[in-house]
Amino acid sequence: MMRIGVVAPSSRFSAEAAGKVTALAAAEFPEAEIVFHPQCFLTHNHFAGPDAARADALVEMANDPAFDAIWFARGGYGACRIAEDAIQRLGPAARDKTYLGYSDAGYLLAGLCRAGFSDLAHGPMPQDAMREGGDAATRRALAWLTRRDPAALEGGLAKGARHAAFNLTVLGLLLGTPLEPDLAGHVLLIEDVSEHMYATDRALYHLTASANIRGLAGVRLGRIGDVLPNDPDFGEDGETVVRFWCKRAGIPFLGLADIGHDSANKVVPFGLL
Amino acid sequence: MMRIGVVAPSSRFSAEAAGKVTALAAAEFPEAEIVFHPQCFLTHNHFAGPDAARADALVEMANDPAFDAIWFARGGYGACRIAEDAIQRLGPAARDKTYLGYSDAGYLLAGLCRAGFSDLAHGPMPQDAMREGGDAATRRALAWLTRRDPAALEGGLAKGARHAAFNLTVLGLLLGTPLEPDLAGHVLLIEDVSEHMYATDRALYHLTASANIRGLAGVRLGRIGDVLPNDPDFGEDGETVVRFWCKRAGIPFLGLADIGHDSANKVVPFGLL
Repeated sequence: MMRIGVVAPSSRFSAEAAGKVTALAAAEFPEAEIVFHPQCFLTHNHFAGPDAARADALVEMANDPAFDAIWFARGGYGACRIAEDAIQRLGPAARDKTYLGYSDAGYLLAGLCRAGFSDLAHGPMPQDAMREGGDAATRRALAWLTRRDPAALEGGLAKGARHAAFNLTVLGLLLGTPLEPDLAGHVLLIEDVSEHMYATDRALYHLTASANIRGLAGVRLGRIGDVLPNDPDFGEDGETVVRFWCKRAGIPFLGLADIGHDSANKVVPFGLL
Repeated sequence: MMRIGVVAPSSRFSAEAAGKVTALAAAEFPEAEIVFHPQCFLTHNHFAGPDAARADALVEMANDPAFDAIWFARGGYGACRIAEDAIQRLGPAARDKTYLGYSDAGYLLAGLCRAGFSDLAHGPMPQDAMREGGDAATRRALAWLTRRDPAALEGGLAKGARHAAFNLTVLGLLLGTPLEPDLAGHVLLIEDVSEHMYATDRALYHLTASANIRGLAGVRLGRIGDVLPNDPDFGEDGETVVRFWCKRAGIPFLGLADIGHDSANKVVPFGLL
């Protein structure tokens, strides 16, 4: 039996999503037991409980040798408030686990990567069960967590290459912080959602000025979804904008990637494939 | 006669605003001649003309000894695309001038500060003439540019202290870039507009992690205007959020400041008052 612990380090999580995930797992992944930490259902303003409760739940489950994986319940916002503190409190049992999430959970993936954790992946989270086509996202995440099913992986990952994947806004806003991982030589996959295109352009000025980012082997662009209206029209799409900044910074642009804030979001394991 | 050159390094500028500024200046500041560079009225997608045109206009007017001041026409977005290139092309005549602007023009104020320019100020721009009460903003900017009227200054600036003022989002997204100024020992005034409170909280995690920002003498908070709806409610206002991050980073919080994206926005000269 594989035991997967779910904690919610960011925004409020939905009990309905937990129900959907539990039902799908029972039907299709009998080898997995999914345990939602009670913290997942706390609320404190914007967050799934106060900072201390979110940090404590993560530390408790990560340090418990009875769990094989930590699955972040959802993104939204809030992981940066607890990541440094929680990661400092992780012991040896925490290093033997898989960690899966994306979006705001990128703060934790980044900090864990920097701390030398080796089994991290960018991919669907329990809250994605609520999306249109969400069962496919849940199934893909569980297929990766339980069976390391290669069909769950993003199709363009290359054997022998190092990868990392992040939400563009989150990655930019963790540069220079104690959570920034060393991405030298990595192929970086980025995606974003619900931003104005001018804000994406602005984020890329900042990102591509970083020496760490300039040391990438290359960038692949996932989906930039739900782009907010730009008045006047920005006149360039996400790919044009990313190509512009990569070229200006001397970073190879390696094409598109099959990740994003949607149910088609594929799994990207960090580090060497 | 004082000659003030206006260029538009960011978003499209309004000819109507130029007309209002010219009329007010003619009536109340006969000692000033305001020259709008033709580039101010170009459009290219989101911007007041292509990158090259915006950079060239700034370089041309800044390097022209016939002008005493450069007044940035408006913010929006776009200055980061041209700032490094333009500043590298500035000669000795550019160093003798006053530069006034805020918001997206903060990229230029930052880069000029880093390049050792000594007469920089955060304050109203020509486009502010279109705001409700905009005449007061125009009058305040011109009173500063032409007469160094102390009534134009932000009321809490202390003699003998070093100051800088920025839009919070802009400052965060220029950290780590070639535009980042050394703010050690400065009192930093920040303001923001049209952001969700979670995004302000997130920006402050990033900002207050910076060693440069941790070297500030303190932070004063201007207005956080037009806060976008947060679902669920963030539960904390801008002052609470700024106090939280300042405390966590050991940066003195020195109270509120009279700056913001509004017609009451006061002038903050950079450096020693």
